[in-house]
Amino acid sequence: MADFENEALQTQVEELVARRRWAELREVLSPLEPADIAMLFDELPPDRLPLLYRLLPKELAAEVFVEMDGDQQEVLIKSFSDTELKEVLEELYVDDAVDVIEEMPATVVKRILRNVDPETRKSINEILQYPEDSAGSIMTTEFVDLKEDLTVADAIKRIRRTGTDKETIHICYVIDDKRHLIGLVSLRTLLLSEEDDVIADIMERHLISVHTLDDQEAVARTLSKYDFLAVPVVDRENRLVGIVTVDDAMDVLQEEVTEDIEKMAAMLPSDKPYLKAGTWETFKARIPWLLLLMISSTFTGQIIASFENALAAAAVLTAYIPMLMDTGGNCGSQASVSVIRGISLNEIEFSDLLRVIWKEVRVAVACGGVLAAANFIKLMLVDRMIFHSPISITVAAVICGTMVCTVLCAKVVGCSLPMLAKKIGFDPAVMASPFITTIVDAISLLIYFRFATVLLHLH
Amino acid sequence: MADFENEALQTQVEELVARRRWAELREVLSPLEPADIAMLFDELPPDRLPLLYRLLPKELAAEVFVEMDGDQQEVLIKSFSDTELKEVLEELYVDDAVDVIEEMPATVVKRILRNVDPETRKSINEILQYPEDSAGSIMTTEFVDLKEDLTVADAIKRIRRTGTDKETIHICYVIDDKRHLIGLVSLRTLLLSEEDDVIADIMERHLISVHTLDDQEAVARTLSKYDFLAVPVVDRENRLVGIVTVDDAMDVLQEEVTEDIEKMAAMLPSDKPYLKAGTWETFKARIPWLLLLMISSTFTGQIIASFENALAAAAVLTAYIPMLMDTGGNCGSQASVSVIRGISLNEIEFSDLLRVIWKEVRVAVACGGVLAAANFIKLMLVDRMIFHSPISITVAAVICGTMVCTVLCAKVVGCSLPMLAKKIGFDPAVMASPFITTIVDAISLLIYFRFATVLLHLH
Repeated sequence: MADFENEALQTQVEELVARRRWAELREVLSPLEPADIAMLFDELPPDRLPLLYRLLPKELAAEVFVEMDGDQQEVLIKSFSDTELKEVLEELYVDDAVDVIEEMPATVVKRILRNVDPETRKSINEILQYPEDSAGSIMTTEFVDLKEDLTVADAIKRIRRTGTDKETIHICYVIDDKRHLIGLVSLRTLLLSEEDDVIADIMERHLISVHTLDDQEAVARTLSKYDFLAVPVVDRENRLVGIVTVDDAMDVLQEEVTEDIEKMAAMLPSDKPYLKAGTWETFKARIPWLLLLMISSTFTGQIIASFENALAAAAVLTAYIPMLMDTGGNCGSQASVSVIRGISLNEIEFSDLLRVIWKEVRVAVACGGVLAAANFIKLMLVDRMIFHSPISITVAAVICGTMVCTVLCAKVVGCSLPMLAKKIGFDPAVMASPFITTIVDAISLLIYFRFATVLLHLH
Repeated sequence: MADFENEALQTQVEELVARRRWAELREVLSPLEPADIAMLFDELPPDRLPLLYRLLPKELAAEVFVEMDGDQQEVLIKSFSDTELKEVLEELYVDDAVDVIEEMPATVVKRILRNVDPETRKSINEILQYPEDSAGSIMTTEFVDLKEDLTVADAIKRIRRTGTDKETIHICYVIDDKRHLIGLVSLRTLLLSEEDDVIADIMERHLISVHTLDDQEAVARTLSKYDFLAVPVVDRENRLVGIVTVDDAMDVLQEEVTEDIEKMAAMLPSDKPYLKAGTWETFKARIPWLLLLMISSTFTGQIIASFENALAAAAVLTAYIPMLMDTGGNCGSQASVSVIRGISLNEIEFSDLLRVIWKEVRVAVACGGVLAAANFIKLMLVDRMIFHSPISITVAAVICGTMVCTVLCAKVVGCSLPMLAKKIGFDPAVMASPFITTIVDAISLLIYFRFATVLLHLH
């Protein structure tokens, strides 16, 4: 089923709901993917939700539940009897159960914890205690563990016996008696080995693991870099406590990118989709940086005010302020955004600082030269000859000289600030366009008035 | 091995190379992950590469080869004898071979195609004919296909026999005699079923597939949305021609995000990492938008020039131009970037336009109000009382009124332009900060001078 069929499907579902054709509705819904059903339900009035949800076969229902957003889950849980809630919770993987719990108000959380079996409750509480955004908080505790003295045949038997409850069976982890991680073996290797091979002989002993407290983004990047389907999570004593699977890693990467992009556009990161966040939430995410940047841009205004006399003497200069400031801002944001992205992809490290600056200097000279030349031609041909603007060659030289210097400063500031931020432990992403623009604005004006005072003999 | 060990390792490798301890070097390299070896090699002088590469065990060598960048691969291929080249090519998956070929100059491509076996050559040529960035161009043709009348035991036998050459064996695709895709069965299902179950009874018939010509980003989003390990690629007659695996999908998502971020910062997208791209390449990616935006920002200058008299009469107004322009730009870029990200995550569609605008209007009123109030207080307390700036209540009203209107316009323009761009088939990402800033600059100045002329009775 492709995306473009969604609308037709939705109309169909709404019609069946209106005509109360429950049996038909179940026929329509059952073959769909859980993510699509959750999307369909999202568009329906919430009071319909419990009824429709009960139409789904039990296993599918739990899968759909996982794909829903917090509000919908809450509506459902509140409509569940304790028996229904137990049934759904039994079908959930531990990490999904934790995701649900994190979105719920305290009363609902209590009810959930009361209704899961004691073992799951223990696992849930364990995961909940890890800090937000750590490997421990996104891992699952349902994986296949093997002992190294098992034969392949026994291992496969064990997988068959216990595999239904595991989030992945494609990678199995080998542990010793004290649960230390000592190796891994893929299901593929198991299948392609002889039945009487011993795990110890076929397992991979050099393996990459992450620590429970590692940042979730680093974990996701590890999975992506090595093309793993899952990565084991160990505690401080190298005991295996969980695994992070590739589907969760993909979600983490998407979330982190969205966060970075939001920070680059001077917003506080939000974990809600755009249309789900209320006005108040969006306002709160946007206003702090707007206020801060507004205040800092008043310094730019102070610079202009302090050169008021110069501007009065050569009024033509005022008209080129926006162009110089905008171009500086654009150059700076190009450099900063390139570097920020490079840092987050691990392509750039602090030790590359001089290489990066040297590269930006060369690019800046090229860009600045071309922009100044284009500008000079435009000043002479368009502004002077067509619009009869009072632009002397000296004024043009002031504008074009400022252009070259501004571009150079903008690129150097733009590329080095994110790297310095990272070095001192700040998030490089906040050093993006708006922040750089404010700094570069001030710099470009200072350069402009410097050139003007010197070349035009203003005071 | 964690990332922080990389530097120590590199020193060790360099030392061993210098002292020509080849046997020890092989001991150090062999247990490493392919991606890490490729990174180590990248830091070494290229003339060492062929020698070091030959130290690696054959299978590992091929895996390392895939992880290298184009320049290194070219150096290696040029140093290979035909026999060596054949050996490496035999170990590569078809989609990896295609990736290598796409980076090579024509003479190297010819040599590669001459040295692969005829069947692989056919597959390679098939994949090469699909347009860049299509599902066909990133798929692999090495997957497990099953017939529906097989028993589980036979299916597992078939996987054991043919599985070594397949990129994934976790998902098997069921096809009919004409290679039409009719179902899928996961290895997990196979393992958890009885040996004499028939595939037709246990396979999943409702499945999601993509088309060879679908955009690679849409394919990656499908994998991510449904948490698939692989997605089947079919041709126009629903014949199964390949699969796209989750590791490739992750790479595609990362690339597409980098492209979006580059476009948002007014750069042409580049497919090289920041430090690998030369000055000339970076210059070419950056200068077109800089020129375009520079020219369009001269219109902002024209607006200022045309109000020269008004500014001369109330010179204090000039000092607040940067603050108004910057704030407008920041508000616009917040809105546009939020919407662009929402569009690319499929959270926002064109039909949501009015909802989006209404949301932004409410947020704009809140932000504008707070900013104007903060500004008013600052104008009265700081500028007037501390700096004795000649600001009357009326001038403050002009500035604060402009602030509210600018924020409102910026948010509305910022959120609607990307959606309109998408609607008419343009890339919404280019409607980000720099573009919006240029438009909002002009709007904010027009509003400013309008307020000024009316309230201050200027002409």
